[in-house]
Amino acid sequence: MIDSAPSRQKTACLLIIGNEVLSGRTRDANLQYLGGGLNEAGVRLAEARVIPDDHEVIVATVNECRTRFGYVFTTGGIGPTHDDITSECVAAAFGVELERNPQALALLQSHYRPEDLNENRLRMANVPAGGELIDNPISKAPGYRIDNVYVFAGVPKIMQAMFEGIRHQFSGGPVTLSKTIASLVPEGELASGLGEVQARHPDLDIGSYPFFRHGTLGVSVVMRGLDGDELDTAAEAVRGLIRGLGGEPIEGEFA
Amino acid sequence: MIDSAPSRQKTACLLIIGNEVLSGRTRDANLQYLGGGLNEAGVRLAEARVIPDDHEVIVATVNECRTRFGYVFTTGGIGPTHDDITSECVAAAFGVELERNPQALALLQSHYRPEDLNENRLRMANVPAGGELIDNPISKAPGYRIDNVYVFAGVPKIMQAMFEGIRHQFSGGPVTLSKTIASLVPEGELASGLGEVQARHPDLDIGSYPFFRHGTLGVSVVMRGLDGDELDTAAEAVRGLIRGLGGEPIEGEFA
Repeated sequence: MIDSAPSRQKTACLLIIGNEVLSGRTRDANLQYLGGGLNEAGVRLAEARVIPDDHEVIVATVNECRTRFGYVFTTGGIGPTHDDITSECVAAAFGVELERNPQALALLQSHYRPEDLNENRLRMANVPAGGELIDNPISKAPGYRIDNVYVFAGVPKIMQAMFEGIRHQFSGGPVTLSKTIASLVPEGELASGLGEVQARHPDLDIGSYPFFRHGTLGVSVVMRGLDGDELDTAAEAVRGLIRGLGGEPIEGEFA
Repeated sequence: MIDSAPSRQKTACLLIIGNEVLSGRTRDANLQYLGGGLNEAGVRLAEARVIPDDHEVIVATVNECRTRFGYVFTTGGIGPTHDDITSECVAAAFGVELERNPQALALLQSHYRPEDLNENRLRMANVPAGGELIDNPISKAPGYRIDNVYVFAGVPKIMQAMFEGIRHQFSGGPVTLSKTIASLVPEGELASGLGEVQARHPDLDIGSYPFFRHGTLGVSVVMRGLDGDELDTAAEAVRGLIRGLGGEPIEGEFA
């Protein structure tokens, strides 16, 4: 049921690379942005992994995921310091050299004064052989694509700018549509009828998310699928279900 | 370098189960909480995965991760609705029956009026055979542990309460200590010296995290390790490095 609807879509996996996310120091913001953005481009984010700045782990994970998923996106680890090891790991995963990319070098040269472009900053011009640069309009040091692997910066603003610059490349797949209906009917009372709606619409992915806001307990029903008409039919059934339980359907999230 | 320091610690993997996180609807909050909380208990969160509400994926991921990591924690998918499939998947992963747990049933009976305890809510009393309940002080429906797999609710408040109730079970491993020194010296200028400090302290994990706050660009250097004295030595070296570049070391995060 979960997989049938999006089967016409390509899948993607996001690799969030960074000890700081696993230690709890930094709360990732890239997953949410990319999950939503990919969907608008007709790509389904099927999995995400948070992995440490560890050579072996990164190489093994990149190699596992680039065969399992249509696209792999990585965030983090392409800065100038010793703990930025993503590019050498991606090169190792593909079995290619990590080269000083002339185009990337020119970008850094346009951004830094010659005396500031030290060896460490020059590392940001190192790209696995065959990599195609991804523009960084914010701080110049580029990301890149190699085969189906897209390497982005970890800083959310830069990551987002990199993705926005290439998102048109992913157009073509059908976009997952979604409809949300909230109500104050308890989830446990909605559950049986909701399961029946899901059973009648196996191509939709119907999720039930309890909330507690402004002192009020309720549930958001989120329906997702590729067929707008089927979504409308299911939404009408959910509205009827809520009314039948004495509740009032609220279109969209409860605010 | 990344792995050597924590080698005396047990590792953990967090499985965040839920389509709503992958679609971008919900921003996960459990990873950050558990990453920090486990560390205080001497356990290193070594990986996290966000996976969909998909039977095959959940079973395969639980089975892969429970052999690769010391502990596995799951969040999400143990509510009353049709999309709550975590427990049946964990049972399948262990090859055991999903049973109606008498203790869990009693908890639900103490919480709901008999007429409200319908078949769907009763699903929350289903626990893989051999599972040991984890207390849910907020809404009663329990989590559970089976072997090294801990099954938590996805709602952050409930997940946190479940973890707080059992975190004493994880005591024993050494706690990772950390020290942060910020400065307004650009990361690219700090990089070379910082690499040398890392090379001199291979047992520490030294991370460099640029920030842009209040219109000011700077970098936080985070040092993590098990040995407090070594951490102090490295911190002093980083302070010297910053001063040598004309900067002022700021203890802790730049606020």
